[in-house]
Amino acid sequence: MKKALAFDIGGTKIYSAIVNEEGKIISEIDKFSTPKTIDGIKDVLKKQIEKYEQDADIIAIATAGDVNNENTAVIGSTGNLVKGYYTINFQELSGKRVFLENDANAAAWAEYRIGASKGTNVSIMLTFGTGVGGGIIIDNKLFKGKSGAAGGMHFKMFSDKRRKCTCGSWDCYEAYTSGTGLKRSAEEYLNNPDVTTYDVIDGVKNNDSKMLEIFNMWQEYIVIGIVGLVKLFDPDCVVLSGSMAQFLDIKKIENEVNSDNVTTPTSIRLAETENYAGMIGVSLLALEALENG
Amino acid sequence: MKKALAFDIGGTKIYSAIVNEEGKIISEIDKFSTPKTIDGIKDVLKKQIEKYEQDADIIAIATAGDVNNENTAVIGSTGNLVKGYYTINFQELSGKRVFLENDANAAAWAEYRIGASKGTNVSIMLTFGTGVGGGIIIDNKLFKGKSGAAGGMHFKMFSDKRRKCTCGSWDCYEAYTSGTGLKRSAEEYLNNPDVTTYDVIDGVKNNDSKMLEIFNMWQEYIVIGIVGLVKLFDPDCVVLSGSMAQFLDIKKIENEVNSDNVTTPTSIRLAETENYAGMIGVSLLALEALENG
Repeated sequence: MKKALAFDIGGTKIYSAIVNEEGKIISEIDKFSTPKTIDGIKDVLKKQIEKYEQDADIIAIATAGDVNNENTAVIGSTGNLVKGYYTINFQELSGKRVFLENDANAAAWAEYRIGASKGTNVSIMLTFGTGVGGGIIIDNKLFKGKSGAAGGMHFKMFSDKRRKCTCGSWDCYEAYTSGTGLKRSAEEYLNNPDVTTYDVIDGVKNNDSKMLEIFNMWQEYIVIGIVGLVKLFDPDCVVLSGSMAQFLDIKKIENEVNSDNVTTPTSIRLAETENYAGMIGVSLLALEALENG
Repeated sequence: MKKALAFDIGGTKIYSAIVNEEGKIISEIDKFSTPKTIDGIKDVLKKQIEKYEQDADIIAIATAGDVNNENTAVIGSTGNLVKGYYTINFQELSGKRVFLENDANAAAWAEYRIGASKGTNVSIMLTFGTGVGGGIIIDNKLFKGKSGAAGGMHFKMFSDKRRKCTCGSWDCYEAYTSGTGLKRSAEEYLNNPDVTTYDVIDGVKNNDSKMLEIFNMWQEYIVIGIVGLVKLFDPDCVVLSGSMAQFLDIKKIENEVNSDNVTTPTSIRLAETENYAGMIGVSLLALEALENG
């Protein structure tokens, strides 16, 4: 069975492991803090590749940022990584083929191949963490758009410039539905800049009425965005993932989405592949690409 | 060369003509007011079919409402047509195959085959008229979603329930960017329920500062929605069509969309196939379906 040496490069951590064609992690998982320099990031990758590439048929990297349609390079800047990250020549890090994909796209593929959206034709995966990621699968293919940037969850929630998004624009879905978005809603509602996401989650557990209101507003924003996506894509299912997804009431979200004038019901599901979805998905993609030449 | 007997069934008019494989209308165009009963609509179709079906290889119907993925039936209700319209059995109207497609989808296909989006891989067409329609083309195929309802332009422009949409939901793109949406913005801004879309357009021509402001707000709403679509689909181009599109400043819209943090620029174009795009597009689709069995 063929294997990939997988990486997941995020804003705070880099993970690495060996993943097989079935999407199983068959090694220890190595973890590193993401270095703040380009050379630092390259060093981490190089050392892992030197150590493990003989055990793998391909190098598979899930990364923050958009990845081109050839899966060879990151295009454009990535807010959470060092400036100029996209200039890294990933191909020269190994004698073997190096295959890249955006982390949310990779996670969506993991869900499609071995997780919650298995067997569907049209699915959307949303990741709610510090930010919000998205991956769209149409007819057995990751939908990448003209340059690889498709799946960006930066449609607007308001049209009157209320809240800046980390992307530089205004009122994006990410700005209201990420963990950071929840914190910002709490800050505004309580007029307290020090309130945290954890405070809200804790408050909900303790039945604090204000925290419940803030939490429900956050979940309502998530619903409002999904309604728009469902009308655009008419998907079989929408998969919710990421560290914040565990707090969501999936059944309630599904009921609200489907009560908002949707032609045929859409299934809302919690992700199944969890923490290492990025490494698993990019490995499956990379090994399929190897198979297809 | 094969030919289709084409219809375009809208809320106010039904058009009919013969269209060939090149998308050329090769007959007179017959026009009817859309009857207010199911039997009335069936009568119009039956009479045309009796008269002209011997000149055609297939019956091709562009219609308001969502059409299933088999292109045989309308699914769900259509606001602008008689109640129960979707119960019409279109197949029994002719001995020849009857092929249906949603009117905006059909128009998008006309643009893709012989109009503004020819040669692109990913394109979105938006129709601005009394309502707003949408059609999405991905990799040489109309994107229909799981049940045929994809391309609905009912994502939200606000998240705090300001304006009801004709679909029954709140604050949809259609509610702000259709001709009706422009009228409603003018009503609100001027506190005058009698102001019309024409008043606004006339006012713009005469440099009326209030009308200019209302018009610019309308165009800005159009931009805001396109920005969200571009981040989701990363399309080669977005085609703007419909009776209201002629008033838009296409170059300005393109500049504003591409200045809003889009990875690679998207081309914004005015539609080329104009009034009969629905009949042309559905005929091309129907004749291609006939070709492919």
